[in-house]
Amino acid sequence: MREDDFLNNLFKYYKPNPRVVLGPNDDCAIISQMVNKNLVISVDAFIENIHFRYDMLSFYEIGYKAVSASISDILAMGGIPIGVLISLNINQKSINRVDEIYKGIFDVVDKYCVSILGGNVEKYDRLELHITAIGEVKKDMQILRSNSKPGDIIAITGDLGRPRGYLIAYERKLISGVKWWINDMREKFAKPNLRYEELNKILSNIHVNAMIDISDGLGIDSYRMAKLSEVQIVVYANKLPIRDSVKYLAKKLDIKEWFIAVESGEEYELLLSIPKEEVGKIEKLKLPITIIGEVIEDKPGSYIIDGDLKIDISKRGYDKFAN
Amino acid sequence: MREDDFLNNLFKYYKPNPRVVLGPNDDCAIISQMVNKNLVISVDAFIENIHFRYDMLSFYEIGYKAVSASISDILAMGGIPIGVLISLNINQKSINRVDEIYKGIFDVVDKYCVSILGGNVEKYDRLELHITAIGEVKKDMQILRSNSKPGDIIAITGDLGRPRGYLIAYERKLISGVKWWINDMREKFAKPNLRYEELNKILSNIHVNAMIDISDGLGIDSYRMAKLSEVQIVVYANKLPIRDSVKYLAKKLDIKEWFIAVESGEEYELLLSIPKEEVGKIEKLKLPITIIGEVIEDKPGSYIIDGDLKIDISKRGYDKFAN
Repeated sequence: MREDDFLNNLFKYYKPNPRVVLGPNDDCAIISQMVNKNLVISVDAFIENIHFRYDMLSFYEIGYKAVSASISDILAMGGIPIGVLISLNINQKSINRVDEIYKGIFDVVDKYCVSILGGNVEKYDRLELHITAIGEVKKDMQILRSNSKPGDIIAITGDLGRPRGYLIAYERKLISGVKWWINDMREKFAKPNLRYEELNKILSNIHVNAMIDISDGLGIDSYRMAKLSEVQIVVYANKLPIRDSVKYLAKKLDIKEWFIAVESGEEYELLLSIPKEEVGKIEKLKLPITIIGEVIEDKPGSYIIDGDLKIDISKRGYDKFAN
Repeated sequence: MREDDFLNNLFKYYKPNPRVVLGPNDDCAIISQMVNKNLVISVDAFIENIHFRYDMLSFYEIGYKAVSASISDILAMGGIPIGVLISLNINQKSINRVDEIYKGIFDVVDKYCVSILGGNVEKYDRLELHITAIGEVKKDMQILRSNSKPGDIIAITGDLGRPRGYLIAYERKLISGVKWWINDMREKFAKPNLRYEELNKILSNIHVNAMIDISDGLGIDSYRMAKLSEVQIVVYANKLPIRDSVKYLAKKLDIKEWFIAVESGEEYELLLSIPKEEVGKIEKLKLPITIIGEVIEDKPGSYIIDGDLKIDISKRGYDKFAN
C-alpha cells in the first residue's frame, strides 16, 4: 500500500462544514472567512501509554476521546468548531484498525458538523494522534481564562471524578466483573460528553467572564484561570457535583470524595467564572451546572474548603512534567 | 519543573502577526478574519529516526527544517502564512536543548512574520514535532494540485537533488572531511530555503494553473499533481536544474544525475504548471525558475525522458509506506 492509498481510504470520513471550501487531498484545506468572527485554533495530543492503553480503550474509543479533547478547547473559548486536522502516527497493531479509530472520530465530528480537513500519517511503533481543531467565535465574544473577577461565582458543568475514579479502580484491580459503579465511571472515561449544546444556551443567556475546560483536573485548571486572572479561586468540597459511583469508590478506598473529583482530568467539563448578579439566570436555564465556589481578591491560587480546612489544590491533577 | 513553566519559557518566541488577536497561553489562539481571503491550513510531522537523526542535524536545524516543511504547504497553495502550532514530544536528550530547537523555528517564522500561536508538549522517549501551519490566500486565487492542463509547461524553482544527494553520501560514508560538494548538498539538506519572495513575484506576474511543493520527490509529487489533474506530466532529464555538487556525486557513484534529482525529497521547491503563453513572462522575471517539461493529454502519470527512453517516475521519491 502506498501512503496516498492509505490516506484516500480515510477521505470517506470527510463531510463538508458550510465554511469549508476545500477538504482534504491538496497541500492544504481551505476555509472561508467572516469578518464578524474570529478564528480560534488549538492542538492537542493523544498518545499510546501516555493518554491511553489498549486494555482500557477500544480503537473506536481512542478516536472518540482524542477528537473530543481537541474540540473541547474550541468550546472553552466560547467557540463553534469548524474542522480538525489529524497528524497520525500509526503502528502495526493499529494499521488495520484505522477505520475503527476514524469511526470514533467521525461520530464526534459528525454530531457537531465538524469537518476532518486532512492530516498527515507516519508509520511508527506507537499509535499517536495529534489533533488540531479550528473554530470561530463572534468578534469580542471570546471567553478567556484570564478574565475571572473577584466577586464572580465559580460554576462547573456536569459532574467531576469519574475518569480519575476509573483510573484508580483500574490501578487497584477493581474493574473485573460487571459493577454499576465501574460502568458509570467508565462511560465518561471512554466517551466524554462535550458541552456543546449547554454552552450555546449558557452563552445566549448569561454573561460569562472567564472559562476553561477541565482537561488536567479541577485543581490544575482552576489554578491556570486564577493565575492568569490574578485572582484567588475558592471551591467548596461539599458543593462539588460527584456521582454515586465516585462516592462509592471513595468510601471503598476510605479516601475523601473530593480528592478524586479535584484530580480528575479528561473531564471536558467547562469551568465558568460568572458575575454574581447572573446566578438567578443560571438556575432558570435548568442545565447541568453547579455553583461550586467563588473568586476573591487575594494571592493568586486555587483552594478547596473542606470543613475548617483551606487546602491548596493548584497542583492537584495531571501534570505531564511532574513525573 | 511544571508543564506550564516549560511552556511559559517558550512564549518568548511569540511575535504577533498583524492578524493575530491572541497568541499562546489560553485554550486557543485567536486570529482575525478577512472576507476577501480564504484560510489555508495543513499539518506535517517531523520525527526522530524517520525524518531526522541527531548525527545529521543540530537541534537548531531540526527546528528550522521542521517548521520550513509546514510553512511550505501554505506557499504551495499560493498562500501567505500567518501562524504555526507545535505539538511537541520531547525526550530527555532534547529537553535541555529545547531553546535551540525553538531558535531554529524562530529564525524561519520571524523572517516571514509568522506567529508561533501555541501548541502542546508531552514527555516522550523520542523527539517529534507535529506542526500545523495556517495562512490565507485571496479568494478564488488558491492554486491547487488538481488544475494542471494539457498544453501547460512544467517549471521548478531552484535546484533538485541536494537533500537526497546528502543522504546518499551519508549512507555511503562519504561525508567526513571538508568537501565543497558535501557542504553544498548539506546546506540545503539542513536549512531548506522557502520560495516565499519568488512565489509572490510569480503570482503577481504569471497565471499559474497548478502547484505543489516537492516534499517527497519530483517523481511522487509530480504524480500527485498528474493524478488529481487527470493529465500526464513529462519532464526531461537534461533540463533538470542540478548543481555541480550533485553531478559530482553521481559521477563518483556512476549513477545518473537525474536518479538523485527525481527521488530527492525535502526540497521545498515549487513545481508549477503554467499555460504555455506565459513562458515569455517567466524569463523576464529573472527568478531561479527552470522549465523542465510539459503536460500532455494522455493516461495520468509522470514520466521522464532520458534520451530515447520514457521512464515512469510516479513512485520515485520518499513513500513512508513503501518500507
